[in-house]
Amino acid sequence: MKKIPLLLMGCGGVGRQLLQHIVSCRSLHAKLGVRLRVVGVCDSKSLVVAPDVFTAELEDSLLLEVCKAKSSGASLDTLRNFGVCETFSSTDVIRKVTDIGGLLGRSTGLAFVDCSASSETVGVLSRVVDFGCCVVLANKKPLTSSMEDYDKLVAQHRRLRHESTVGAGLPVIASLNRIISSGDPVYRVIGSLSGTLGYVMTEVEDGKLFSQVVNAAKSLGYTEPDPRDDLGGMDVARKALILARLLGRRLNLESMKIESLYPAHMGPDVMPLDEFLKNGLPLLDKGIQERTEKASSNGNVLRYVCLIDDSRCEVGIQEVPKNSALGRLRGSDNVLEIYSRCYKEQPLVIQGAGAGNDTTAAGVLADILDIQDLFP
Amino acid sequence: MKKIPLLLMGCGGVGRQLLQHIVSCRSLHAKLGVRLRVVGVCDSKSLVVAPDVFTAELEDSLLLEVCKAKSSGASLDTLRNFGVCETFSSTDVIRKVTDIGGLLGRSTGLAFVDCSASSETVGVLSRVVDFGCCVVLANKKPLTSSMEDYDKLVAQHRRLRHESTVGAGLPVIASLNRIISSGDPVYRVIGSLSGTLGYVMTEVEDGKLFSQVVNAAKSLGYTEPDPRDDLGGMDVARKALILARLLGRRLNLESMKIESLYPAHMGPDVMPLDEFLKNGLPLLDKGIQERTEKASSNGNVLRYVCLIDDSRCEVGIQEVPKNSALGRLRGSDNVLEIYSRCYKEQPLVIQGAGAGNDTTAAGVLADILDIQDLFP
Repeated sequence: MKKIPLLLMGCGGVGRQLLQHIVSCRSLHAKLGVRLRVVGVCDSKSLVVAPDVFTAELEDSLLLEVCKAKSSGASLDTLRNFGVCETFSSTDVIRKVTDIGGLLGRSTGLAFVDCSASSETVGVLSRVVDFGCCVVLANKKPLTSSMEDYDKLVAQHRRLRHESTVGAGLPVIASLNRIISSGDPVYRVIGSLSGTLGYVMTEVEDGKLFSQVVNAAKSLGYTEPDPRDDLGGMDVARKALILARLLGRRLNLESMKIESLYPAHMGPDVMPLDEFLKNGLPLLDKGIQERTEKASSNGNVLRYVCLIDDSRCEVGIQEVPKNSALGRLRGSDNVLEIYSRCYKEQPLVIQGAGAGNDTTAAGVLADILDIQDLFP
Repeated sequence: MKKIPLLLMGCGGVGRQLLQHIVSCRSLHAKLGVRLRVVGVCDSKSLVVAPDVFTAELEDSLLLEVCKAKSSGASLDTLRNFGVCETFSSTDVIRKVTDIGGLLGRSTGLAFVDCSASSETVGVLSRVVDFGCCVVLANKKPLTSSMEDYDKLVAQHRRLRHESTVGAGLPVIASLNRIISSGDPVYRVIGSLSGTLGYVMTEVEDGKLFSQVVNAAKSLGYTEPDPRDDLGGMDVARKALILARLLGRRLNLESMKIESLYPAHMGPDVMPLDEFLKNGLPLLDKGIQERTEKASSNGNVLRYVCLIDDSRCEVGIQEVPKNSALGRLRGSDNVLEIYSRCYKEQPLVIQGAGAGNDTTAAGVLADILDIQDLFP
């Protein structure tokens, strides 16, 4: 039985779901000849760690307690009663998990899993890569920091997996990596990588007012608490940047063209949320409607896409043929079209749910199983 | 630089294209830190082998000569002039490549690549798996033989890759393996996995006569020389069986429901090809037309699909919703819909070119790069 030691940073929705998946997959993974040995779980404030990271593991009952504590909003501190919890201040958490990376990286190996949404983890991640750890990310921020940070993370490219940073569990990164390693040159990647914006654009296509659709999406819980976090396009831009860098482009977020669906003077720093929803949004209806009609007269529809080709890496509204995979998209599915030498006339299309803790955590778990050959 | 020793069986279209891809990817693979060291190439009659399989390799110029010779219909024997060709009778080829598998499997490792279309390779493949070799298949037949043979091949499941056995280079197997290893239960797989039958069914949907479409497809070179090889469904059945076995079903070809689009009395053993094309096929038009109309009246279209769910593993014509990925399929693309816990309402969809030497060989090459961590 191959053992994969694992340390998890971040126990929000995705991290908790990952722990639950790990526990419920025990017998399946035993059949596959693998045991995931969780040696530590931390959030930004606390670390729960096995007494001896070389040999021991956190028991499944404790992992489920972690899930319970975190989903009820409690701190990991409350697990002190289990007698295995060490608590550290946030700088000490970083120091301690770095130490664990150093101890295990070059001996048993360690899968260092980042399911946080923090921009602060990139430092510890590049340290533990140096120690020989594998890094598995659901967190987009370490990959969308500076090129210098990126280069450090990908230096041992086989030891890095990050499927769930783009399209949740959809096999987007795995498929692109296969295309790249087979020498098939990618000419163009275009996709709808935000379930929220996909939903908004298809509802607008059906003739509804932009402001009404955004308000409805917010009521349905499809958007972030402040929908401008979706409408600004930054989340899609991070995904586009991850794909572009995977394809070899040396770019930063700052140099990308990112279309925001609201103007600067309606930004969160200028206009309160209520005001934006009530008075700001309706002012945007006419512009979107005119663009929708213009697209329609060209036989096209509007999608908020990420677009990468030889000259561009940008995110924003584009006209796409009604009769393409992107144009036929309905609802909140993600879809990615990849054009290459092998997929020239018709693209390779990958489509499906691109959000949700369950599928995101499943993508992380598949990544962890996929690096098993790197463990002794 | 990691070296992956490689032995190729089969130098038909896919095998030749693979050699060309290997040669043209040299600098790309060097950047990825990998060198494919081709130690031998064989067809059913001859073997070209490096003088010392532990250290030497066939030079790129020779690999290109192999491609040239085989594409002109010449035997590998003609490469004697290069001074590195050993020629064997067909049983001796098997003996010799098995020996190479034994020598390299437990030392440097060996990627044993089967790009033939032979049902005779399964014996040598299960031998070399025992020796510790990795096996990479474009050949469907070893995986669709008896369950006993199958169990031998998958005994070391990480050492077996076979993306190009289903949907050519489309990331179908890789995606299913990710879903399986993350514990996401697959409820249903349905897909159009024959470019030929996909083309035929979409043309029929447009109102053309079945017989005319098949004759046109033959003229365009879309079908096998005898279109009954496509219309019989056996090729799709093999792909369905590979997917079903991957999902854990213990089935044989013999126990599958396979719908042939021509009746037994029009089979190749009974009716000459000319007769079938001229007088046989038109007798089938009415039946197909009636089924097409019935489907249409239900808001559906007909597709020749592989269908795997809890109770079924079958191939044949099915009504599918016009408004699904399968229903919207046009032309010769392959498409697969996967329904699971994570992809429940809307399936995970993978779509694109599912045939052609270029994309099939690219899938084999991606598989080879994907097993690099198994080499020392």
